[in-house]
Amino acid sequence: MKTNKSGISRVITLSALFILGLITSCGKSEEAASGDPMAIAKARGLSPADVERAVKTFVPPGKFDDYVIFASGGHSGQMHLIGVPSMRILKTIPVFSNESWSGYGYGNQGIEEMLNKGSEGRGTNLRWGDTHHPALSETEGDYDGRFCYINDRANGRIGMIDLTDFKTKQILAIPNIQTSHGGVFATPNTEYVHISAKVPKAYAFSESPTGLTKKDHLEKYKDIYRGASSWLKIDQKTGRFLLDESFQIELPPYNQDLADAGKEVSFGWGFINSYNTELATGGNKDGGTSIETGASKNDFDFLHIINWEKAAQVVKAGKAKKINGINVISIQTAVAEGLLYLAPEPKSPHGVDVSPDGNYITVSGKLDPHSTIYGMDLIKKAIAEKNFEGTDAYGIPIIRYKSIVAGQVELGAGPLHTQYDDKGYAYTSLFLENAVVKWSLGPPYFTGDKAWKVVDKISTSYNIGHLTTAHGDTRKPHGKYCIAMNKWSIDRHPKMGTLLPQNFQLIDLTGAKMQILVDMPIGIGEPHYAQTASMKLFEKSLQVYPIGTDPMTMQVMAGSIQKAEDTRIERNGNTVDVYLSVIRSSFTPDLIECKRGDRIRIHVTNIEQTPDATHGFAIPEYNINLSLDAGEAALVDFIVSKPGSFSMYCTEFCSALHLEMQGWIIVS
Amino acid sequence: MKTNKSGISRVITLSALFILGLITSCGKSEEAASGDPMAIAKARGLSPADVERAVKTFVPPGKFDDYVIFASGGHSGQMHLIGVPSMRILKTIPVFSNESWSGYGYGNQGIEEMLNKGSEGRGTNLRWGDTHHPALSETEGDYDGRFCYINDRANGRIGMIDLTDFKTKQILAIPNIQTSHGGVFATPNTEYVHISAKVPKAYAFSESPTGLTKKDHLEKYKDIYRGASSWLKIDQKTGRFLLDESFQIELPPYNQDLADAGKEVSFGWGFINSYNTELATGGNKDGGTSIETGASKNDFDFLHIINWEKAAQVVKAGKAKKINGINVISIQTAVAEGLLYLAPEPKSPHGVDVSPDGNYITVSGKLDPHSTIYGMDLIKKAIAEKNFEGTDAYGIPIIRYKSIVAGQVELGAGPLHTQYDDKGYAYTSLFLENAVVKWSLGPPYFTGDKAWKVVDKISTSYNIGHLTTAHGDTRKPHGKYCIAMNKWSIDRHPKMGTLLPQNFQLIDLTGAKMQILVDMPIGIGEPHYAQTASMKLFEKSLQVYPIGTDPMTMQVMAGSIQKAEDTRIERNGNTVDVYLSVIRSSFTPDLIECKRGDRIRIHVTNIEQTPDATHGFAIPEYNINLSLDAGEAALVDFIVSKPGSFSMYCTEFCSALHLEMQGWIIVS
Repeated sequence: MKTNKSGISRVITLSALFILGLITSCGKSEEAASGDPMAIAKARGLSPADVERAVKTFVPPGKFDDYVIFASGGHSGQMHLIGVPSMRILKTIPVFSNESWSGYGYGNQGIEEMLNKGSEGRGTNLRWGDTHHPALSETEGDYDGRFCYINDRANGRIGMIDLTDFKTKQILAIPNIQTSHGGVFATPNTEYVHISAKVPKAYAFSESPTGLTKKDHLEKYKDIYRGASSWLKIDQKTGRFLLDESFQIELPPYNQDLADAGKEVSFGWGFINSYNTELATGGNKDGGTSIETGASKNDFDFLHIINWEKAAQVVKAGKAKKINGINVISIQTAVAEGLLYLAPEPKSPHGVDVSPDGNYITVSGKLDPHSTIYGMDLIKKAIAEKNFEGTDAYGIPIIRYKSIVAGQVELGAGPLHTQYDDKGYAYTSLFLENAVVKWSLGPPYFTGDKAWKVVDKISTSYNIGHLTTAHGDTRKPHGKYCIAMNKWSIDRHPKMGTLLPQNFQLIDLTGAKMQILVDMPIGIGEPHYAQTASMKLFEKSLQVYPIGTDPMTMQVMAGSIQKAEDTRIERNGNTVDVYLSVIRSSFTPDLIECKRGDRIRIHVTNIEQTPDATHGFAIPEYNINLSLDAGEAALVDFIVSKPGSFSMYCTEFCSALHLEMQGWIIVS
Repeated sequence: MKTNKSGISRVITLSALFILGLITSCGKSEEAASGDPMAIAKARGLSPADVERAVKTFVPPGKFDDYVIFASGGHSGQMHLIGVPSMRILKTIPVFSNESWSGYGYGNQGIEEMLNKGSEGRGTNLRWGDTHHPALSETEGDYDGRFCYINDRANGRIGMIDLTDFKTKQILAIPNIQTSHGGVFATPNTEYVHISAKVPKAYAFSESPTGLTKKDHLEKYKDIYRGASSWLKIDQKTGRFLLDESFQIELPPYNQDLADAGKEVSFGWGFINSYNTELATGGNKDGGTSIETGASKNDFDFLHIINWEKAAQVVKAGKAKKINGINVISIQTAVAEGLLYLAPEPKSPHGVDVSPDGNYITVSGKLDPHSTIYGMDLIKKAIAEKNFEGTDAYGIPIIRYKSIVAGQVELGAGPLHTQYDDKGYAYTSLFLENAVVKWSLGPPYFTGDKAWKVVDKISTSYNIGHLTTAHGDTRKPHGKYCIAMNKWSIDRHPKMGTLLPQNFQLIDLTGAKMQILVDMPIGIGEPHYAQTASMKLFEKSLQVYPIGTDPMTMQVMAGSIQKAEDTRIERNGNTVDVYLSVIRSSFTPDLIECKRGDRIRIHVTNIEQTPDATHGFAIPEYNINLSLDAGEAALVDFIVSKPGSFSMYCTEFCSALHLEMQGWIIVS
């Protein structure tokens, strides 16, 4: 009872102080409470701890959150930005999937072309994706607020979001891979963004599409399939991928899974874990076992340890081969050049996360209750000493397991992912146990019996996957908050049909014990990984484009409206070019006449220069809707296939006379 | 200073009481606060009023909101469900636009067919919409939690969401209209759901598509264009539209705008206001004026007053003509039968909202600072006495304005929409003034100088459009909360590029003065109207489908998996039928062999019966992603166009071995 008592007395004392503060502030502000908050809390059934949660998370009107979560949207194909501690969705950014309200994939030619280019080699103009792992650009190992990268797990692609205007500017269909999972990260100065294959690809490095039979698949899996580790060079000015200067390392057909960049002592290195080193092929109706069973047999899978600085030199030296547009280093060359190693990792690992100082590489195996922590100092020593336990079937040296394990901590059932704070603690999600466990790192963070020790554990709701702490995978974590990204939410939110939201839980890390502050439903996708960055990084983001800007190039678009006289209609044969301005509350011209079968190209410019003066541009009975921010220009290009008149209109409620912001396309 | 002082003493007294409560509860619960909430609040810079806001809106982990907002998503094409008072997004429901995470529009044949059927007559398979006005089904004039209807402003369509499983089940492309705006409501027992045209349609009631010239448009607008009021009969069991039993009333080519159903004393009637009775055609580059200018000239536009009970009788009597699949009552017949009247309403009206008792019809004109309130008793009397001021150009009787105005209240600049509470007050949004104004209704709610009076006004953030109170457009409003749906949000939320969110503000209605509790960013669309319903209505919503259920029919789907032996592959010529089961953590069969050019039909069944056990089903390099809730069945039907092997997988993180939940389509 002692603890409770002292807790109470502290509450009383500090409450009294608060009341004094309140008395002081009341005289000078209209922000006095109209009722007594505590009485209101009681009437609403809030416990004292709930009141604490409320004041820890509330962000008053007009005040801003301290942090922003960049969360993947899972098979929504988008990215979600969520404020911390309010846990409100601030923005969604469309990346791979169509989104009509931001005019993404609905007739804006610049966006359509980007999406089509982002489908190159896939044989289909893809209009969806499964975003998994965001990677914020970094400078000196910390987020710099310039760019964000995110992959498409379904189709082996990656998108680039420019954090100047928070829009997707490039999608790259990575050559020679079909899927990609968690293998996305930026190196400490965004020299490269890494993406690996997830499921290996058949005839991955073939230069033409190649079929195969079930027999081939079942009997020659080992030879036919390959994985890949891709290092995409980044243009530091535009954030774009430079495929010519990028390279891939051929990998065995294990399922390469999560990955992380080295930093500090491990700078220049990357780490990718894997599962299905058993090479299970499926075939559960062909006398075989399911992949689920087949891929869980081995006691150890392999952590891939790659020296990307050395790999870049190898490419420079002409030892790579360009295949389907990208330089490829073969397994053989990678081994010969000493840039690719394996390390055994306990069965079916999932997360691999490098500590702030770069020395500890934490691997958590979902079928092992321990996290295994490798030391970069030990890895370097083992490599120098060639302390190997042979090679895998593809000739890659396997570093002796025992020589590189710095620590192993029994965390609980189903450890998955780890994030760090600013005090030397690690936080690992426990999928099977539904918990977050806090534990101490080894030297120099903690030494002796303080090191490698579980210090706290908190129950979360169901099926926690990733977790994210503020700047928690950088050189400079902030601590403060952890967000548990839970996959199931049964009973956590009101019943609303069969499809339930995911559930994020905000955890306060500032106290001696972790404390769950709020459950947040995620009803717009299934986020996987997230990175949490300081809101301060984005204070100077763009509010208004110069008039006529094409966001794809950030240049003035040819055909944009610069002055009133530019608005016009020009017919050339069956092509009608319309140069159209958009401003509260009219289109000019507002009448477009054409003939059925004409090609009509509408060059639309939002000539506003007021922040938030976004206009839409929609045409009934076509799949056309644009969203044009102040100053933005775009092109709509389509064949007029139906007779009649069509009331084009602004889809944003932009002014009192918004309803009148309408025009006509007249088709004879 | 008096007010402040008394406020302070109340805070101190009740705080002391709360501390006593805390002492009492600490001994028996682990829910004691770990710190002092008031000290935490102070440290975070929260004012006393902010603390009050925090405790008024906080919903603790595992507790549920009291209300749910059904908000249209605007040009997102979807519907958003938002909890009150937490202001968290609980769910999005895709209606008109593709949404990949819920597998909507990405290869699920049932959904594709519904979307295609919902595009009938539009000449394009539409895959987006602009949702504006949700209408919850009603019984005896109050929400009953069965169905929700919502229109597509862009393409003149309406969708039906079944609130059993919260999924869209039907989309209807309304014949004879091209667009629709706010004219959606359900009658008090959901006998009909109403939807009107917004912009009139050229040759609306022509039976074949008809072109026109700009000259026709400019010179014969009055004759060529027509509006329509559509009354869609609802199947009470399934919620579906029964087009055969529905009817339309031909209307003049005014822009029919917001609408509302009569109730109680006005039961059997509907009210639609309009603007552009000037018949402005546009032509701002053809020597004419913009629609914005042309449509704002008249001092009065027209409220349409329609007797739908009488109209149904007229249809029954065979006096309607079936045009493009729907019974149409001509203007002439409507006038002759006494079921259509006009009433002058001050210039460019926007909202029309019927009071809980059905007697007051509040019309707010955005260019007039007053709301004008018509009395149904007066309207009935005027009609009975034929107290008309002539007819409009189409022969529709215009009821004498002065004879039917029950009250007129000067509210402020730009009044738009009105909602009601349980105490006889109305709440109107002021677009230009950025405010919500609270005012008193007339008898029997208030009499004498208490009636028709502004009693409170609160500033909101920028460009408020609609507002919604709990059950605020029903016979039984709850009061308590009002949500201001603001269109601009500059400075209300952190800077994140050029496209800003909308901003909802939650307003507490329980005190003597209205109080803004929280600003909520809406970064996933541009909601227009919303209805706010008690969460209790949905407590029994469906959690799990019986195995093999097709949500489109709620019946067991032919080809669904009922027992293990049902899983198989059957080839017939070039068609491969795959009968596939989905359960944690495998597909059966997990290997599908086919030839390039084959048609492959995958009959997928999620055979789980655990709530929240949703699985995805995606195929790389095709635009295919399904989301299958526990028990759900679906069909994927596509041509295999590429050689190679494709790792189909589950897109929901469903279990510890989720990553292994994968199979192969092998294409030779």
